[in-house]
Amino acid sequence: MMARLNAIGEQVIKRCRLLAEATEEPGFTTRTFLSEPMRAVHRQVRGWMEAAGMSVAVDHVGNLRGVYAGAQTTSRRLLIGSHLDTVLRAGAFDGVLGVLIGLSLIELLGARRLPFVIEVVGFSEEEGVRFGAPFIGSRALIGDIDEDLLERRDANGISVSEAIKSFGLDPARISEARAGDGTIGYLEFHIEQGLVLDSLGLPLGIVETICGQSRIDVSFEGKANHAGTTPMHMRRDALAGAAEWILAVERDTRAIPNAVATVGQLDTSPGASNVIPGSARAALDVRHADDIVRQDLVKRLLRCAEQIAASRCLTVSHEQRFDQRAVAMDSDLTELLDRAVVTAGHRVRRMSSGAGHDAMIMARRIPAAMLFLRNPGGISHHPDETVLADDVAAALSVGMRFLEELERRHA
Amino acid sequence: MMARLNAIGEQVIKRCRLLAEATEEPGFTTRTFLSEPMRAVHRQVRGWMEAAGMSVAVDHVGNLRGVYAGAQTTSRRLLIGSHLDTVLRAGAFDGVLGVLIGLSLIELLGARRLPFVIEVVGFSEEEGVRFGAPFIGSRALIGDIDEDLLERRDANGISVSEAIKSFGLDPARISEARAGDGTIGYLEFHIEQGLVLDSLGLPLGIVETICGQSRIDVSFEGKANHAGTTPMHMRRDALAGAAEWILAVERDTRAIPNAVATVGQLDTSPGASNVIPGSARAALDVRHADDIVRQDLVKRLLRCAEQIAASRCLTVSHEQRFDQRAVAMDSDLTELLDRAVVTAGHRVRRMSSGAGHDAMIMARRIPAAMLFLRNPGGISHHPDETVLADDVAAALSVGMRFLEELERRHA
Repeated sequence: MMARLNAIGEQVIKRCRLLAEATEEPGFTTRTFLSEPMRAVHRQVRGWMEAAGMSVAVDHVGNLRGVYAGAQTTSRRLLIGSHLDTVLRAGAFDGVLGVLIGLSLIELLGARRLPFVIEVVGFSEEEGVRFGAPFIGSRALIGDIDEDLLERRDANGISVSEAIKSFGLDPARISEARAGDGTIGYLEFHIEQGLVLDSLGLPLGIVETICGQSRIDVSFEGKANHAGTTPMHMRRDALAGAAEWILAVERDTRAIPNAVATVGQLDTSPGASNVIPGSARAALDVRHADDIVRQDLVKRLLRCAEQIAASRCLTVSHEQRFDQRAVAMDSDLTELLDRAVVTAGHRVRRMSSGAGHDAMIMARRIPAAMLFLRNPGGISHHPDETVLADDVAAALSVGMRFLEELERRHA
Repeated sequence: MMARLNAIGEQVIKRCRLLAEATEEPGFTTRTFLSEPMRAVHRQVRGWMEAAGMSVAVDHVGNLRGVYAGAQTTSRRLLIGSHLDTVLRAGAFDGVLGVLIGLSLIELLGARRLPFVIEVVGFSEEEGVRFGAPFIGSRALIGDIDEDLLERRDANGISVSEAIKSFGLDPARISEARAGDGTIGYLEFHIEQGLVLDSLGLPLGIVETICGQSRIDVSFEGKANHAGTTPMHMRRDALAGAAEWILAVERDTRAIPNAVATVGQLDTSPGASNVIPGSARAALDVRHADDIVRQDLVKRLLRCAEQIAASRCLTVSHEQRFDQRAVAMDSDLTELLDRAVVTAGHRVRRMSSGAGHDAMIMARRIPAAMLFLRNPGGISHHPDETVLADDVAAALSVGMRFLEELERRHA
């Protein structure tokens, strides 16, 4: 069995690399929402799905949906999915891998039918590249597409609605994409896009929570002045204040297990080499699986900014840009996934996801579970993104045992 | 005498404010090298100079030169000057004040003649705004105008040479602007453009040295990574490294009397709020009156950058952009100025200048001395730049005593 799974693992990787050739930008993999190369991806995946005995359709938000019937007529349905769109100049595995693992699980079933339908979904949009609004595909499955979203326009002035029409779909029928009441769960396989599993030497991780996120702009104001004629003790250097705070962000965040905080952007003004910076604006990003811990950390970091500003005769202000609560995966399905990992012979590592995923959207209406695959070097959103065939085999093995557990439950 | 000097102090300030109306940009004072409004300034100052018994000419680099003959025919000549150009949206006193104080000293002499010629020079260019090359006016007086400079072009593609011609001057005759061998010294009055005198409650300061300056770009390189999925202990955050170093620059520089060091510019890449910065480039500006102290400090700061980089698994590199030695004022003339300050009843405060001035250029060939006037609030290169009438009166009083000391010496 393991040799066979390894061979299928290799095949999944080959398929991902093949789909990576469908691109808007030759030489790279760039495939945004309902772009022309998405047609080729649909054609290819549809072929594999139909060969595996699935009936395939594209819903009216552009999700590719392959249905594998159950042993008997039933409304019970398990969804397995991830997304088929990519960031600009992407790797081959972010998203696509989860769809193709779902497909391979159906192939591994052979002609065997389970007491529930399995639907493999390739979401049309998760990355938010074309319209600056992520998760369009999964939002349709939970009935969360509104007029605002449909009227959003891309860089060429084309609206979401128009993009849907020119792909041959009908925006008036998007509501039909909604998952039915018999849906028993959503399972997503995805590369970790981080270094945790790689550094632990583990192939797989079980996502318990998708972290909440705060984004806050923090601005320090001092006084711009001549770099040559202003003695050190008479300065009100906004950049020096921001620097002290950036170190405090690092120190205070390190003290809290599993918290991350980042200053990714820092703009200084006036920004001349011979002028003391009069102002410095930093973009702070804070994430944690526990909203209370995250909010406490944010408060502490803002208080710290005030203390630093006061001690340096600066002023500080902040503006919240984004605040998203943490989303828990379904405890029952996660427990099932846990047992599947154990019976497949792997160590269970529960973890939180610092990045958002379709599972975060689906979890609003459907019990969701998520399995991370090791991401060598943590390299993602980059052509060098990789995944190991052995790890794909391990994920397939866990997926099969998950289906078997679910089969026993619904027998 | 003091009441009269105060009235003249007020008059000097009024004249500066009048000249500030000659501008390229209505509502602000912007007057670059040989711009149209410079003609109005020349016309106005020439009128005052001629009324004071001076013969006036414009040399072929556009310097306004007013000559007040000596008691007898002599080649001995004292130059008193500063510049008539301004930065963009300038104040009324930077440069102009020094020229008008020189003029007022001639007016204060009445018809009295000294055993040397006094020439008041209004330099055409010191700020470097139009051609990105400062000190064009004073460079002509020491014979330092070369072809490279003449061929430099402004934003409209006009060369220095062409600008000189269209002002009605002849670039082929620039060498005639050179100061003669009988020049006994150069004296410059200038606002401090800093807070030292203001914070000490002193009207005047004697410049001993114009600081040397190092400008160095320091680049930290780490690894850009996902802000949500990269644990704190696995990061190689270039901005956090740069922040630690900016604080070290501040701390180490504070420990050295009269040293200043500034990071005025900091660019991070990729510069997205949800990405850990992979690189950060900082522009470091270091100044001190003693070149050895400055060079030692630069070495220490670069070593410190290396230590911080090593402790954070970053790399660091640097590139020297600019290195200018300190320039000492003439010790003999400075001693004379010192005595003049004492006999005028003021406290002597010797200091270094963190900014460059025409005196720095003149000192290469001519004994130079420089007197700073208090600059309230340290505000300069800004419309709010001010100077106190009492301080101008104090400078005039010192100037008169300086002339008298020189008169005794050359009697």
